[in-house]
Amino acid sequence: MPAYKAPLRDISFVMNELLESEKLYQTLPGYEEATADLMNAIVEEGAKFAENVLSPLNQSGDEEGCHWSEEGVTTPKGFAEAYRQYVDNGWPALSASVEDGGQGMPNLMGIVINEMAGTANWSWLMYPGLSHGAVKTIEEHGDAEQKKKYLTKLVQGEWTGTMCLTEAHCGSDLGLLRTKAEPQADGSYAITGTKIFISAGDHDMAENIVHIVLARLPDAPAGTKGISLFIVPKFNVNADGSLGERNAVTCASIEKKMGIKASATCVMNFDGATGYLIGPPNRGLNCMFTFMNTARIGTAIQGLAHGQLAFTGALSYAKERLAMRSLTGPKNPDGPADPIIVHPNVRRMLLTQKAFVEGSRAFLYFLAQLGDIVDAGNEEQAKAADDLMALLTPIGKAFVTETGYEAANIGVQVYGGHGFIREWGMEQIVRDARISMLYEGTTGIQALDLLGRKVIGSGGKLLLGFTSLIDEFCAANEGAEFVDVLKAYKDEWLGLSMKIGEAAMQNPDEAGSAAVDYLMYSGYVTLAYFWARMAVLAKRKIAEGAGDTSFYEAKLMTARFYFERLLPRTVSLKQTMLSGADNLMQMPEALFEF
Amino acid sequence: MPAYKAPLRDISFVMNELLESEKLYQTLPGYEEATADLMNAIVEEGAKFAENVLSPLNQSGDEEGCHWSEEGVTTPKGFAEAYRQYVDNGWPALSASVEDGGQGMPNLMGIVINEMAGTANWSWLMYPGLSHGAVKTIEEHGDAEQKKKYLTKLVQGEWTGTMCLTEAHCGSDLGLLRTKAEPQADGSYAITGTKIFISAGDHDMAENIVHIVLARLPDAPAGTKGISLFIVPKFNVNADGSLGERNAVTCASIEKKMGIKASATCVMNFDGATGYLIGPPNRGLNCMFTFMNTARIGTAIQGLAHGQLAFTGALSYAKERLAMRSLTGPKNPDGPADPIIVHPNVRRMLLTQKAFVEGSRAFLYFLAQLGDIVDAGNEEQAKAADDLMALLTPIGKAFVTETGYEAANIGVQVYGGHGFIREWGMEQIVRDARISMLYEGTTGIQALDLLGRKVIGSGGKLLLGFTSLIDEFCAANEGAEFVDVLKAYKDEWLGLSMKIGEAAMQNPDEAGSAAVDYLMYSGYVTLAYFWARMAVLAKRKIAEGAGDTSFYEAKLMTARFYFERLLPRTVSLKQTMLSGADNLMQMPEALFEF
Repeated sequence: MPAYKAPLRDISFVMNELLESEKLYQTLPGYEEATADLMNAIVEEGAKFAENVLSPLNQSGDEEGCHWSEEGVTTPKGFAEAYRQYVDNGWPALSASVEDGGQGMPNLMGIVINEMAGTANWSWLMYPGLSHGAVKTIEEHGDAEQKKKYLTKLVQGEWTGTMCLTEAHCGSDLGLLRTKAEPQADGSYAITGTKIFISAGDHDMAENIVHIVLARLPDAPAGTKGISLFIVPKFNVNADGSLGERNAVTCASIEKKMGIKASATCVMNFDGATGYLIGPPNRGLNCMFTFMNTARIGTAIQGLAHGQLAFTGALSYAKERLAMRSLTGPKNPDGPADPIIVHPNVRRMLLTQKAFVEGSRAFLYFLAQLGDIVDAGNEEQAKAADDLMALLTPIGKAFVTETGYEAANIGVQVYGGHGFIREWGMEQIVRDARISMLYEGTTGIQALDLLGRKVIGSGGKLLLGFTSLIDEFCAANEGAEFVDVLKAYKDEWLGLSMKIGEAAMQNPDEAGSAAVDYLMYSGYVTLAYFWARMAVLAKRKIAEGAGDTSFYEAKLMTARFYFERLLPRTVSLKQTMLSGADNLMQMPEALFEF
Repeated sequence: MPAYKAPLRDISFVMNELLESEKLYQTLPGYEEATADLMNAIVEEGAKFAENVLSPLNQSGDEEGCHWSEEGVTTPKGFAEAYRQYVDNGWPALSASVEDGGQGMPNLMGIVINEMAGTANWSWLMYPGLSHGAVKTIEEHGDAEQKKKYLTKLVQGEWTGTMCLTEAHCGSDLGLLRTKAEPQADGSYAITGTKIFISAGDHDMAENIVHIVLARLPDAPAGTKGISLFIVPKFNVNADGSLGERNAVTCASIEKKMGIKASATCVMNFDGATGYLIGPPNRGLNCMFTFMNTARIGTAIQGLAHGQLAFTGALSYAKERLAMRSLTGPKNPDGPADPIIVHPNVRRMLLTQKAFVEGSRAFLYFLAQLGDIVDAGNEEQAKAADDLMALLTPIGKAFVTETGYEAANIGVQVYGGHGFIREWGMEQIVRDARISMLYEGTTGIQALDLLGRKVIGSGGKLLLGFTSLIDEFCAANEGAEFVDVLKAYKDEWLGLSMKIGEAAMQNPDEAGSAAVDYLMYSGYVTLAYFWARMAVLAKRKIAEGAGDTSFYEAKLMTARFYFERLLPRTVSLKQTMLSGADNLMQMPEALFEF
């Protein structure tokens, strides 16, 4: 397993130079303290924690996995200690609001820290990471007593949280869920049912776990409009905040999985467990929509993280491993062969990883900043940022995890046969990365959300919100490298959206048939926007003699690679997304068999 | 893990209808017995063995893995018994020549049986599968005594064989290998060195293992021209054929791998082991070239196999799993939701698997038939078939395994979160399939072989050999569906080859930079040829009223899907392969770092 080394120069480039974070946060009430100095200092501390504490536990955690017994789940050696350090250093509270006991740093800081922690050890990050949904739910929908009881402990990481949604027969289609909530005389509810795929559903890292459970009230309408949210703590909490009795919620088993084996994926039994209604009855799904975007961006980070780790490993191997001579003559004449980084195809693989990773970092940090504007900007700013997030989040979640998985697989490929051997750690990255295209909404679900709800659903308005940013950038940088290409893509994207929208009005299956290709196309164009911005900036920095020239030159070369070798994938996607629904829908179910 | 059900109808379609095997074999001396009746009977028996004996051991073999001790390797429960049955039923000898104790069936039969056995349990197939190289080496290069001593036992499966090539510091670049062979007074050699990645290097299935070892004689020139082949048996063989002393070759350890865990991947120590030179000294690599093509086709089968298994699992899940309603209104109104096969994107995924699998089956069976023509055709036929194989084998190996891996990943995706859980078996298919793009020459190595050695190296002659087949087909079927498109692709393929060939004359890195995209492009066009052939045939069968209409209709619809949704990937590949070497080569090694 490659040791994690945080890409601090690139993080700083995106955070400070490309997105000019200090400048932004000086204008956002409550974030004035987020100066570049402070943010850089936080990132450097986070890098040390990720490199020194989390990274060494990544491979051992995979080997050991989690242990289940009737008493509960035990995490791999070192995980609980690392979590204790994480809490002691105040990391969980970093970007939570001050009134809830947080440190009030921007959401962007949380994303950067999660990128580093997650690259070092994604399985470990799942434990604190899953608290996010519980915190957000209570923050936005809890009453004063609920906040007092649960929020500070969650924010500070003394307790962790979960989101209990999925049941065995329903994942994407939550309308089918069956868990029941029966009102009790004391105003609480008795929750009964079985939830599956509950990440961090049980563990030995914190003294209490606060489950947010989706369940149905006795009189609830069928489908998605009859779902309510309940707080179900592992240990009941007394009025004075101390822990009371064990609640009737238990971990029945943990799943054996392809990857993220050190993350406990639990089957949770609620056996008349005491729960407390949070938010209005039957409106649970609506309540959850309020933080769906940030949760999905949190998952998108996994694509960036695994791409980064695979790139780190592949690059160091490509420099060391000797095989064959360069096609243009020996580059290492004193050695028995050349390092494989001389070979064009190895460079193609490395640059593919690099272009996806660095492009995705710019994209996702931008999304995180939007979240901060939604939280702290004025009404107009917040509305615009929220609209952009609505459009870009499904693209970020699906495109970054799909390309991150490609990058992870390239990591194995660069190692040749050694990539398949566990000892080197490259295959673990593939196994860990595979889940990212499945949970928090599969790629197919994200694609329907993007094309159906966001693009067609808004009559194109949300898309125009983003393409007007592209227009602005192009207008301001006319004649610059990549700008004309980007502009043409922007026009094509709008045209394709219109065309598919029209076809979908005649036949809704046309949208479903185009959706995934449309999403991937949108992802390539979105990344082209960020690569063009980075290239323009890099060129300016070189012209200004800002120093660090080779860093900026590398950015320019990677941008060229992106535009010439990755962006052209859109040409095929365009053709297939327009090929119509017939080639998918005409085959009768029975004929698939043969 | 989906239970294996052999796709007998499709196997028969390709073998009997598309490739008209009986007709071919009636013209090939020695294969006259291979009537359709006999071949179908063999396939049906093979299907039973794969379904009933091998398939039930697939998931348990993965769970248990192999066990190493100083005494040797123990395979998972049931593996040795299955192998005993396999030998007792005469399967190993099926397509070996009669004079060596084989049954003299065509190579095609061996490929069909291997497809079925390998789909049911790829790890298990690795044990008998690896004997192929040893058999071929001894068959073609062994002297009479060596043949007598080793060949019959290997052919009948009483013993198994290995190929000991790779060392820790060299995989693709065998010129770097260091294992030594020192001549002994009795004419034998003392072999000393360590080989890695030796599949079936040790096991408990057969009483002896015959290793073919690549090593250097004391006076050997450096590089690939100083490699010789040696027979090194695990147990020395006495003059009467009985087993003698244990030789000084031991399995030092077995690798922990991502997948194919039930296949023992051994580190083999040769500690002055007794070996026997086979073939001329220093010409070992040349000797191995004689069966490189068939070995690579054997690996290509893995892509077909894992694609087939993933499709089987995904299809049955897509029919059963209920989620959401069809975009065009409920299709299962009495149920709580529709089966997910109603959703366009799920169909897109299933059809992608189906089109790759069925197209690859036609492609690989065709390649296997070419092998039979090489073996038994007259000189002119054999030469033409050999040329076609030289061109098509790297395409088959790389394209079928790459698309097979895509199909395996789709299998996981169709299952959603359940795909990541081991119990369902879908993730095992991905883990098992991942090696296929690495061993027996990575995709990058195949691409250089195709573009550099085969296409450019023959001055385009080998490519013209295949495109003339496409021409013939197009001429004979003018106006038929897909024929014009295919013809245009054929022209474009020739044009691209010319263009890249010319660029490579100026700068060899241009070939290296285009190679993988060129190979994938070639794969899509090759599969288009087979899909067009299958479509024309299916249409004729429907017109003739041959019965089984829905089978032929499904073929036609799948062909349309292939042409409209998969073949357009070439449009991007064309653009990227022509983007030049600069975007790969200009970045100095040090600048990758950032």
